[in-house]
Amino acid sequence: MGFVRRVERVALAVADLDAAQEFFETWFGAEFDAEENIEDMGIRYRPFRLGESTMEILQATRQDSPVSRFLASHGGPGVHHITFEVDDLDAAVAELERRGGRIASRHDYAPGVTFEGQVWREAFVHPKDAFGVLVHLAEKRRVG
Amino acid sequence: MGFVRRVERVALAVADLDAAQEFFETWFGAEFDAEENIEDMGIRYRPFRLGESTMEILQATRQDSPVSRFLASHGGPGVHHITFEVDDLDAAVAELERRGGRIASRHDYAPGVTFEGQVWREAFVHPKDAFGVLVHLAEKRRVG
Repeated sequence: MGFVRRVERVALAVADLDAAQEFFETWFGAEFDAEENIEDMGIRYRPFRLGESTMEILQATRQDSPVSRFLASHGGPGVHHITFEVDDLDAAVAELERRGGRIASRHDYAPGVTFEGQVWREAFVHPKDAFGVLVHLAEKRRVG
Repeated sequence: MGFVRRVERVALAVADLDAAQEFFETWFGAEFDAEENIEDMGIRYRPFRLGESTMEILQATRQDSPVSRFLASHGGPGVHHITFEVDDLDAAVAELERRGGRIASRHDYAPGVTFEGQVWREAFVHPKDAFGVLVHLAEKRRVG
């Protein structure tokens, strides 16, 4: 049985958030939410809705950001990661490791730190294992 | 306003469907459906469910398949396309072109040809425009 509740979003790495936002708004009628800043990862991102689904665009805020490295190694913009939502990150990570999976990095944000009005706990599955896809496991709890 | 109903699925190009299926089953509990064969595109694919979401893995059946070209140019497996479901493909394409968008290719399958029990009509948005993402617009109607 799986511990994945759903594919919560696809995140695209881009060089220019404004240009990418204009593209998705103009061509597809995307509805953007407020920009979020993840300082410790060197990333700014903007979530957007396409119908009933969510996607996001990511931009680096410094050279050692994972998004800078992605753009350099990938040769341009593209799919940076896919978020699999889970109900319980601890249980999901334990189950994944029991099955032979490897976690590349994990983030438990400090109490009070929220994104999009939610508390996030997250882990990234080692990308070399996952057929070219960086899988982002995320547990999200709405605040209040 | 947008014509996209939802992000219907993410499709991954791989070299070996069996190995990729085993990975997504073992690590994430993916539930696979029957394989489909799109002969005129040189593609076999297997849709799978992750919780309430759908993804698919694609493999080439010949050298001139778009999946062969993807694996060569991308240097390995990865996200081949993202499917945006629309209610009416003709209306979506007309609206996209009115906004300056470009359609790279379009397929209206012959009457009676179904995939996953549905009649599909589809178009691909020119990938050079779309920030490294091949956008697949699909209208799907359940049969019977």
